[in-house]
Amino acid sequence: MENLGYYNGSFGLIEDMKIPMNDRVCYFGDGVYDATYTANHLIYSLDDHVDRFFNSAKMIGIPIVPSKKDLKNLLQEMVNKVDSPEQFLYWQVTRGTAIRNHAYPESDIPSNLWIMIKPGSIKDIYQKFKLITVEDTRYFHCNIKTLNLLPNVMASQKAAEAGCDEAVFHREDRVTECAHSNISILKNGVLRTAPLDNLVLPGITRGHLLHFCRQNGIPVDESPFTLNDLMDADEVIVTSAGALCIAASEIDGFPVGGKAPDLLNILQKSALKKFQQETGAL
Amino acid sequence: MENLGYYNGSFGLIEDMKIPMNDRVCYFGDGVYDATYTANHLIYSLDDHVDRFFNSAKMIGIPIVPSKKDLKNLLQEMVNKVDSPEQFLYWQVTRGTAIRNHAYPESDIPSNLWIMIKPGSIKDIYQKFKLITVEDTRYFHCNIKTLNLLPNVMASQKAAEAGCDEAVFHREDRVTECAHSNISILKNGVLRTAPLDNLVLPGITRGHLLHFCRQNGIPVDESPFTLNDLMDADEVIVTSAGALCIAASEIDGFPVGGKAPDLLNILQKSALKKFQQETGAL
Repeated sequence: MENLGYYNGSFGLIEDMKIPMNDRVCYFGDGVYDATYTANHLIYSLDDHVDRFFNSAKMIGIPIVPSKKDLKNLLQEMVNKVDSPEQFLYWQVTRGTAIRNHAYPESDIPSNLWIMIKPGSIKDIYQKFKLITVEDTRYFHCNIKTLNLLPNVMASQKAAEAGCDEAVFHREDRVTECAHSNISILKNGVLRTAPLDNLVLPGITRGHLLHFCRQNGIPVDESPFTLNDLMDADEVIVTSAGALCIAASEIDGFPVGGKAPDLLNILQKSALKKFQQETGAL
Repeated sequence: MENLGYYNGSFGLIEDMKIPMNDRVCYFGDGVYDATYTANHLIYSLDDHVDRFFNSAKMIGIPIVPSKKDLKNLLQEMVNKVDSPEQFLYWQVTRGTAIRNHAYPESDIPSNLWIMIKPGSIKDIYQKFKLITVEDTRYFHCNIKTLNLLPNVMASQKAAEAGCDEAVFHREDRVTECAHSNISILKNGVLRTAPLDNLVLPGITRGHLLHFCRQNGIPVDESPFTLNDLMDADEVIVTSAGALCIAASEIDGFPVGGKAPDLLNILQKSALKKFQQETGAL
């Protein structure tokens, strides 16, 4: 198959798949998701992503029907059906199918499990991103990977219209994260990244980046940093499932970073090595 | 028909209707909606609701295919197909069908139009609501009626579990609105309600309430009020499409209101009269 959509046991080409009008996603965005990439039909960091998926669902009280083990097996089974060996693998759970009503449906209605797979590769780690800054007007549950993504959509569109790769959110002066990535900076040999509170997603790739820092003796400072810190950084690093460790060269049209290429290179090599070890890619 | 689901020209029983897995509502909650009630197959305040619907869509850049006039005709046509003369009439528009990507799809992809009708009546205006208070953790676009409703869902569930009718949101000390209603108070003969900024939906029924105040010589104060003001009010009034002017008797288990029954009665009679004039109901 060229791509794959899965819904509660049925699957087919995404463009042929349909879902019930009463899935609560249709009225409330009532669900959570997770996503990663594959290479050689091997799924990158699957355990980490499935753990976070279960955590997200638990935080908004959605029970997931399969066990973690069964979900991982199912994801691998679906990945094997898609021809391209390099894929974007996405899955979500929604709070069941019921006539529209804000409060949860009866507890005996099962949640719905979705999978979506399309050909896709991680981005070239050595490219340079252009970024824009956008006021962070999102809710206060950004630590949960929910389907309430309208502010992220609008910020991403703004970045695309500006010919940029990502939008950096800030709450007043404090930099939080990007529209679909985390953001960190290197300054005077220290890696700084926002702490894991309710304003920031606990990014899997962010976690890996901190691990590579510790492995390589680079001190980590998980305290809030500001827009000034961002513009004045030695390097600005964007991380996500598809952007393992990509540096920015420009924010709002002003040049940034480029002042700690050796440290950046250590982190990028570590990230590529981990991806290669798990997937045999590159 | 007992109820009705409509999607881009197809319609049937809601429970039989399906929508494409790639509708952007499924991944981002990328759409806006509006809703009202009918009686005798006549739609209450249709012009107001359709105007707000177009405003909401415009604010997030979703073009609506039919004109306002054609949409109103379509809604009436669908209302006529449902047996019950008293209905909950709901419609929404989503930002087209395309493979998942945060930024908007190509501009030539049309938006999707949805309608959902189920039997339903406005609530008894003379009942008393029990409310709970909940910290308002929503985004800063509450003036747009979007499908990003997870915090509203969770607050409504909390109210239901507490045996209450609605949840009152507050940002620190400031009362904003309820999970799916506006809230106002009467104090010393003045009606106070939150101003129309980005923290509050411009409720159609809220607008009607202010109109009834002006008609009846009741001064209106549209400035923020606090939790203390709420608990200390002469009357607490909840308004929505289904709750035309319902007073609360209890918030977080403490008795509230009941101290300005004559003013309350004037407003309730005005609200009922308007509904009756437009629909012939009651």
